[in-house]
Amino acid sequence: MTKANALTDVPGVKVGHKTLIEGSSVRTGVTAILPHGGNLFQEKVIGAAHVINGFGKTTGLVQLEELGVIESPIMLTNTFSVPAVTEGVLQHLFSRNEDIGVETGTVNTIVGECNDGYLNDIRGLRVRADDAIDAIESAGTDVAEGSVGAGTGMSCFGYKGGIGTSSRVVGDYTVGVLVLSNFGQKEDLLGGDESKGEEPDGSIMMIVGTDAPLNERQLKRVARRTTFGLARTGSYAAYGSGDIAIAFSTAHSIPHHCEQPLQRFEFVREASITPLFEATVEATEEAIWNSLAMAGDMIGRNGHERKALDLERLIRRWG
Amino acid sequence: MTKANALTDVPGVKVGHKTLIEGSSVRTGVTAILPHGGNLFQEKVIGAAHVINGFGKTTGLVQLEELGVIESPIMLTNTFSVPAVTEGVLQHLFSRNEDIGVETGTVNTIVGECNDGYLNDIRGLRVRADDAIDAIESAGTDVAEGSVGAGTGMSCFGYKGGIGTSSRVVGDYTVGVLVLSNFGQKEDLLGGDESKGEEPDGSIMMIVGTDAPLNERQLKRVARRTTFGLARTGSYAAYGSGDIAIAFSTAHSIPHHCEQPLQRFEFVREASITPLFEATVEATEEAIWNSLAMAGDMIGRNGHERKALDLERLIRRWG
Amino acid sequence: MTKANALTDVPGVKVGHKTLIEGSSVRTGVTAILPHGGNLFQEKVIGAAHVINGFGKTTGLVQLEELGVIESPIMLTNTFSVPAVTEGVLQHLFSRNEDIGVETGTVNTIVGECNDGYLNDIRGLRVRADDAIDAIESAGTDVAEGSVGAGTGMSCFGYKGGIGTSSRVVGDYTVGVLVLSNFGQKEDLLGGDESKGEEPDGSIMMIVGTDAPLNERQLKRVARRTTFGLARTGSYAAYGSGDIAIAFSTAHSIPHHCEQPLQRFEFVREASITPLFEATVEATEEAIWNSLAMAGDMIGRNGHERKALDLERLIRRWG
Amino acid sequence: MTKANALTDVPGVKVGHKTLIEGSSVRTGVTAILPHGGNLFQEKVIGAAHVINGFGKTTGLVQLEELGVIESPIMLTNTFSVPAVTEGVLQHLFSRNEDIGVETGTVNTIVGECNDGYLNDIRGLRVRADDAIDAIESAGTDVAEGSVGAGTGMSCFGYKGGIGTSSRVVGDYTVGVLVLSNFGQKEDLLGGDESKGEEPDGSIMMIVGTDAPLNERQLKRVARRTTFGLARTGSYAAYGSGDIAIAFSTAHSIPHHCEQPLQRFEFVREASITPLFEATVEATEEAIWNSLAMAGDMIGRNGHERKALDLERLIRRWG
Repeated sequence: MTKANALTDVPGVKVGHKTLIEGSSVRTGVTAILPHGGNLFQEKVIGAAHVINGFGKTTGLVQLEELGVIESPIMLTNTFSVPAVTEGVLQHLFSRNEDIGVETGTVNTIVGECNDGYLNDIRGLRVRADDAIDAIESAGTDVAEGSVGAGTGMSCFGYKGGIGTSSRVVGDYTVGVLVLSNFGQKEDLLGGDESKGEEPDGSIMMIVGTDAPLNERQLKRVARRTTFGLARTGSYAAYGSGDIAIAFSTAHSIPHHCEQPLQRFEFVREASITPLFEATVEATEEAIWNSLAMAGDMIGRNGHERKALDLERLIRRWG
Repeated sequence: MTKANALTDVPGVKVGHKTLIEGSSVRTGVTAILPHGGNLFQEKVIGAAHVINGFGKTTGLVQLEELGVIESPIMLTNTFSVPAVTEGVLQHLFSRNEDIGVETGTVNTIVGECNDGYLNDIRGLRVRADDAIDAIESAGTDVAEGSVGAGTGMSCFGYKGGIGTSSRVVGDYTVGVLVLSNFGQKEDLLGGDESKGEEPDGSIMMIVGTDAPLNERQLKRVARRTTFGLARTGSYAAYGSGDIAIAFSTAHSIPHHCEQPLQRFEFVREASITPLFEATVEATEEAIWNSLAMAGDMIGRNGHERKALDLERLIRRWG
Repeated sequence: MTKANALTDVPGVKVGHKTLIEGSSVRTGVTAILPHGGNLFQEKVIGAAHVINGFGKTTGLVQLEELGVIESPIMLTNTFSVPAVTEGVLQHLFSRNEDIGVETGTVNTIVGECNDGYLNDIRGLRVRADDAIDAIESAGTDVAEGSVGAGTGMSCFGYKGGIGTSSRVVGDYTVGVLVLSNFGQKEDLLGGDESKGEEPDGSIMMIVGTDAPLNERQLKRVARRTTFGLARTGSYAAYGSGDIAIAFSTAHSIPHHCEQPLQRFEFVREASITPLFEATVEATEEAIWNSLAMAGDMIGRNGHERKALDLERLIRRWG
Repeated sequence: MTKANALTDVPGVKVGHKTLIEGSSVRTGVTAILPHGGNLFQEKVIGAAHVINGFGKTTGLVQLEELGVIESPIMLTNTFSVPAVTEGVLQHLFSRNEDIGVETGTVNTIVGECNDGYLNDIRGLRVRADDAIDAIESAGTDVAEGSVGAGTGMSCFGYKGGIGTSSRVVGDYTVGVLVLSNFGQKEDLLGGDESKGEEPDGSIMMIVGTDAPLNERQLKRVARRTTFGLARTGSYAAYGSGDIAIAFSTAHSIPHHCEQPLQRFEFVREASITPLFEATVEATEEAIWNSLAMAGDMIGRNGHERKALDLERLIRRWG
């Protein structure tokens, strides 16, 4: 575990939230993950994604798979706010890059989501483009957890879920994970003493960052390891879950404009990669528990309520 | 070739356009493909996608891959209008389905795109949610081609491209293709007598519909065959192209709500599928040529101009 | 848990082993899984595979992905015996199908593997084609576990591993899993009190069978759930592991020869699939534990020794 | 076009054939492609594959996808000789690497295939392990084309097909392609004046080599471009075709044993890659035509006959 036990322990990574709590039924928000604080379109990072279960609406994965680079902040929000957040990211990128869409083609944005409709009026489309910009502009190295940003209205194991983060040190490198947890039912956590199936299926977004020099194929391997951390919490990826992992490395930046036809890299040899896998599994599991531990009770749409995780009960059950 | 030589020769399929031509620099629009005229969320169709080259921002493919169904109109627009069009589709679906996001989870929308920034002020984000709704509501069986809907500002082989469509009859079945063409340079078409590399890379979206009873795996095989039709026109899928195919079958509908735990299907045996592949290749190639043949000259952003394809010159060159 | 707690609880499924223990260094074998006892080439079953980590040499997955059917016994053996076992399966299929390779094209065989080189002289290529035929011909409904068949020389968590099986009943259906376990190190199981990294990375093959009527896409979803069962035992899929799952359904048979252009099916509706996922996760985890519990001590190549799992120690450690 | 217009124009690449013509019904063989003439297990090359249509039995692609390296000669043969050829390659690798399977885990072999059963007694399993070793040991820079090696019994467009090769120079780099052609029917080539459907579906293997420094993701993009060259010849990838491309770069070697945890690379910037795509498309198309042009008449199993391509007729038809 590192200094802050957060994704931002990876040097340069920043996280920002915009939390929307209004009246009785707006319980939602936006979270922005910035692989670095500079101009991501001009200085891209290497990245990859893995879809564990694809009942999800994350955008931007087609181009990420093809090119292996991330060129915009990674955004998280509720399912139906993906368009508004995308538009906000585009406006953010346009304001910093006058050439996009005029001289130099387009830009790929990545927006992940979970469904917070139990607590939030998700049909209300209350997140707007400005909220995405606010989340980006507020990004820093302190990461609030629980019911903040995209996590504001999320549920996990029938309790209040949301944003959680954790990190591990592996030799000279750091692996950090940030999750948006919104999956599972009480009895998955507590055992079979509760009725099942009353709640809708949920999802989880898992963002892994590292300063270890990994290429896009290796980062996809890392992204796949989040499955093992997720499984350790009791998930089995129910039918309707959108369980998606995105991984990036800050070790290299890929300039958008460059006169040189070649670029130099230095990557971890495959035989040295296993400790990074283990770190990913551990940090993913802990980030999920942190998302539960840091979220308080919340009442939202139609009086629906999610309690904070009853840690004492969990301890009674599992020892 | 069938009655209208269009995707809408597949019974039930409808296509609608919203064309935006304003001032000197708005040259864009939206095209909606409706696999059937009913409630697509309540009565889904089986579908699949294939990414030929993924420098593209099409949304909705993650869930399509996981579940094999299409539950919303398939939309086409310019790259940066994907969010606005998605929001329009969501509003359209919300208005017809009061349960979405409240009682029954979320809905997956599919929006494809090409970059019309040469002729259109793509940074202006001029397409709005209402334009998507207009395209959906105007859908019918007559399909305008060329510089209409999403095709308004597109270019192909250095000429004016856009929407093209074609169809083939295979025994009792029809295969229809609609393309949004926006790829290639003049010398790819005409041979090496022109300077190359001055134009940005382009893309193509190819939508295949059929009433042949195919499952999602078979439809993915069909979607992959569009590559062969595309290749026959001279494309080689340049670095920056987003070449994506989506295929659907209208033969079965998958009800969203259903008490039965099982559903009956009848699918084409694999050994009988090859003629459907050939039809897809042919209709794709012809739809691309139609997109060129039906588009007229257009002047747009910054006085940029695209001429209609010079058919006479092409004939002189290739005989 | 069903009658025998084995993959063969799925009606019609048969499993056979050929165990090779000779001298001081032959510790290997072959395991055959027959989705049904008839002619698999003439009556194929629907199937799918999922590669969790692809440091493996399993053959036959390319065609399984394309066509979604299994048309031969699923075979397991050691890494370098895949060719011999494939040849044996071909001879078995040729003897029963005179048309293969003459009138009706070829046949796809599926052979999975793990590396038993710690206990077995794997370079000796001691498995021959006849051993594969013996495994197929000996197949029945009683499934021996532990150090038998392909499991003879395998290791798991630093102990003796090999073949394990388990099953679950889900309503009217049965889900059965058979594993070939060969992964992990002692401290993954027992915690950090032992030195790590001295052993080579291992692998696991997981075969899931069910009589639930699932299509190939749904079976791929099932195959992916084995990851969650594997993760619960402590695996994190080390760098050099070949962790591969194959799933099939016996509910439909696909005739090789058929005059009809269409075939009828009945499939589980997606919303009813989650209990099958949970059953897969549980049976996978239990099959792995069974592979450990049922294997005894073994000494092999170069005097290398694997002890049976020290259950008492495990209980002392984890309670 | 380069010096020899062959895959071996890529410096260091070698190709060897073993041709088996015996009696009236043995018409088959083996072809070996060596990315370099050294020890491939000790000095791996970066590689990738793309499956265009997966009715094929090529082995080794699972690990190639996971690790992005090729560590053995790439072999081609007939469908049912994949096991024998694999065993031959293993013996070749064992003899040069005493540590495989003892101290350092296993090795991944790649063997591609087409079905030569029309001319060859494919059920006879006449290729043996020694034939694979002979092909490897005979490898050099002169590449025989037509009915040689794995191409001995292959058919293309109803004519005699087999091995073809071609290359292109792109700036400082060379792109070479070698194909094993075995697809298509006469009327696909000549137009609709002949009856169709009497012949079984065929396949093609396409091997692309280059000295351009590309990573595994970029090589996958290159491999996918073979589809465009294949399509230009008239293929539409019929139902039963196994159309598979494998690409490698000789620019870097990846040592199997290395004390260093990091390795340095230099890769082509994405924006410079398009000319390599075009070269791949062109060389693939030409290699296919060369496989036809270089093959003579052949009579084989059951008196089946394939004529050499009637170039004059083709010219009469297409001008």
